[in-house]
Amino acid sequence: MRYFLQLAYRGTNYHGWQRQPNGLSVQEALETALATVLRRPIPIVGSGRTDAGVHAGQQFAHFEFDTPLPGHLIRSLNSLLPPDIAVYNCFPVRADDHARYTATFRYYQYQISRRKDPFREGLAYVFTLPLDVGSMNEAALILLNHTDFESFSKVKTDVRTFNCQIDRAYWEQKSNGDLVFHIKANRFLHGMVRAIVGTLLAIGQGRLTLDEFEQIILSRDRRRAGRAAPAEGLSLVEVGYPAEVFKERKNE
Amino acid sequence: MRYFLQLAYRGTNYHGWQRQPNGLSVQEALETALATVLRRPIPIVGSGRTDAGVHAGQQFAHFEFDTPLPGHLIRSLNSLLPPDIAVYNCFPVRADDHARYTATFRYYQYQISRRKDPFREGLAYVFTLPLDVGSMNEAALILLNHTDFESFSKVKTDVRTFNCQIDRAYWEQKSNGDLVFHIKANRFLHGMVRAIVGTLLAIGQGRLTLDEFEQIILSRDRRRAGRAAPAEGLSLVEVGYPAEVFKERKNE
Repeated sequence: MRYFLQLAYRGTNYHGWQRQPNGLSVQEALETALATVLRRPIPIVGSGRTDAGVHAGQQFAHFEFDTPLPGHLIRSLNSLLPPDIAVYNCFPVRADDHARYTATFRYYQYQISRRKDPFREGLAYVFTLPLDVGSMNEAALILLNHTDFESFSKVKTDVRTFNCQIDRAYWEQKSNGDLVFHIKANRFLHGMVRAIVGTLLAIGQGRLTLDEFEQIILSRDRRRAGRAAPAEGLSLVEVGYPAEVFKERKNE
Repeated sequence: MRYFLQLAYRGTNYHGWQRQPNGLSVQEALETALATVLRRPIPIVGSGRTDAGVHAGQQFAHFEFDTPLPGHLIRSLNSLLPPDIAVYNCFPVRADDHARYTATFRYYQYQISRRKDPFREGLAYVFTLPLDVGSMNEAALILLNHTDFESFSKVKTDVRTFNCQIDRAYWEQKSNGDLVFHIKANRFLHGMVRAIVGTLLAIGQGRLTLDEFEQIILSRDRRRAGRAAPAEGLSLVEVGYPAEVFKERKNE
């Protein structure tokens, strides 16, 4: 039987989602807690990787388990897990529902604080220089006209194509001046949101024109894009699946 | 010349506002930064004390300085101060404007999270047992009919009276179920908000009736009130002063 887990985490203290030899990942923390509660090793597959320091308000992962799950699973996991990882749901899915491959979209937000904020340390990028948000939003619209984003992808990567269907990309300005960049696509390349945000900040500062921005996209050359914005501002906020994934199934 | 400072802090890592021998206070951190920038010892007076672990979205303090302030004061203070303390404003006031005695009201909020929240660790009290918010709001209304709150004051205290004019006290329920207790008064006794919140939570759990709550207020006996709610949920969010305090004055 395959199960989906819905969780959230503050990425500050983790070396990203993906298990790796050099530091604690969210995946490893979660697998350790699952193994403790279910008394056997439980490998999990996430909807996608998040980099070191990146957060997730919503993340999904799947795992297999052959006997019924204990009713106290979520409570037990949350007691075992540190305060910066929370499990909100666990439900049975079909055998071929896959946390990564069945996902239809990912939605990220990038938080920029316009002044020092004691309550969002590690949760927003503090950027106090003047910004032309209008230009940044014009540039965001240009993103929607393109599908190949090799210019914003980490150079060492094993993906076959650089095509992404972006169907939302805009800057929201809050009443206190803080900014949130919203971006939603069927898939994202490694480092893509942070490279886009860094480049849009260069536009907002007048260091890059809209024409130059479009040329960067067309060049498919990562070296021409801006410096990646820091991880702390980035959160995965929603992962989309077909409605059938969430259809109530008997937990057997 | 007397100046007011407006600041905010996350109280998690501090032994409260007030300077004390046994641990770092917000006052000490701020006085140290001011002394570094202004090159002489600068004692400051806050609008009031906050306990260890209690936060402030808005706090005011005053200090004296005889020569003009450097234009970079706020920027320098924020560079020197750790990320959990931010200074937002510094402005000259009249010689008898006093951060504590001129204040006309204090407004606190107490945040209760109804589920584990990786993004509000240390900023909300996680309380997942069932609560009757309707009863808690009926009890909050009872507070408005009373002025002596000795029952909710720490026993060892040097205040002369226990009278407080509460003019706002209610529970707000957010769409995700989280709760915020709002309370505003001309003054608060030591430990008062946390003792009130702890007692209102006993009412919400059906462990105390509204009649018993009113009897506790009338008894003026701290031992009868509920256990104080944890400091982490509490924030000072606004301190009120007469409008003249904020009137623009020449910084000389």
